[in-house]
Amino acid sequence: MTELLYLDDLAVGMQFQSPTFAVTEADIKRFASEFDQQPFHLDDAAAKTTFFGGLAASGWHTAAITMRLLTSGGLPLAGGIIGMSVELAWVKPVRPGDVLHVISTVQEVRRSKSKPQQGVATVLSETVDTSGDTVQRLVSKLLVTARDA
Amino acid sequence: MTELLYLDDLAVGMQFQSPTFAVTEADIKRFASEFDQQPFHLDDAAAKTTFFGGLAASGWHTAAITMRLLTSGGLPLAGGIIGMSVELAWVKPVRPGDVLHVISTVQEVRRSKSKPQQGVATVLSETVDTSGDTVQRLVSKLLVTARDA
Repeated sequence: MTELLYLDDLAVGMQFQSPTFAVTEADIKRFASEFDQQPFHLDDAAAKTTFFGGLAASGWHTAAITMRLLTSGGLPLAGGIIGMSVELAWVKPVRPGDVLHVISTVQEVRRSKSKPQQGVATVLSETVDTSGDTVQRLVSKLLVTARDA
Repeated sequence: MTELLYLDDLAVGMQFQSPTFAVTEADIKRFASEFDQQPFHLDDAAAKTTFFGGLAASGWHTAAITMRLLTSGGLPLAGGIIGMSVELAWVKPVRPGDVLHVISTVQEVRRSKSKPQQGVATVLSETVDTSGDTVQRLVSKLLVTARDA
């Protein structure tokens, strides 16, 4: 079991690795049917003639899977993972069969002056596929609880 | 039926309004069970003592609902809605019963010099709740097809 970390425990450069998640064709189509009904996320034949050149997961699906991996051990924060804002880039399509994991790196830690029992951590989370390529780059501003809160 | 727009048709300041989507407690818990298993997204009683003060949708759920609204009429782009990168801020919790819609505003339009048959549009999409308050602010860099592609 991973020890949960408070603001006080975080330092720039700390890294965390998540478990893995295998993305299936059924997952891709189910997510897209609910949230992103575009041909390149729903139908392999139709996707062939598009920008993606074949079925690819919705970027929002990749983001959601990334959150799943962060909340299931990938980023062990004591107060939970509470994002205030993020920057997100999709750099490579996610395909059926890809096995993803997330590497997170602490980039900045700032205790709040007005509320010293909490602070903001900036964390880079890179979602990596089976080939070792980054598929998504996420930089999150997270609200983190201090040990003495 | 809305006319689909190409890069050539977009101009700074153009606005689009999406249909609406009603968020249920069951939706919030189902999304969280799959992607964001934290108490404030799963259990109203447990959520009471947290930062959120009650059950709230995962920010990634709000983002996914926003994409659903954009792809179902909220942003009628001819080649589809293909995000390369986004900036995303969650400014107010989304609660069970909230009815959301999205107002999108074109902020910048740039034709590619190397591939003039396409370009990048920067679009601000504000997701608004029943009270008229913005719950999420999304700025997307979208790959947009030109009319002569």
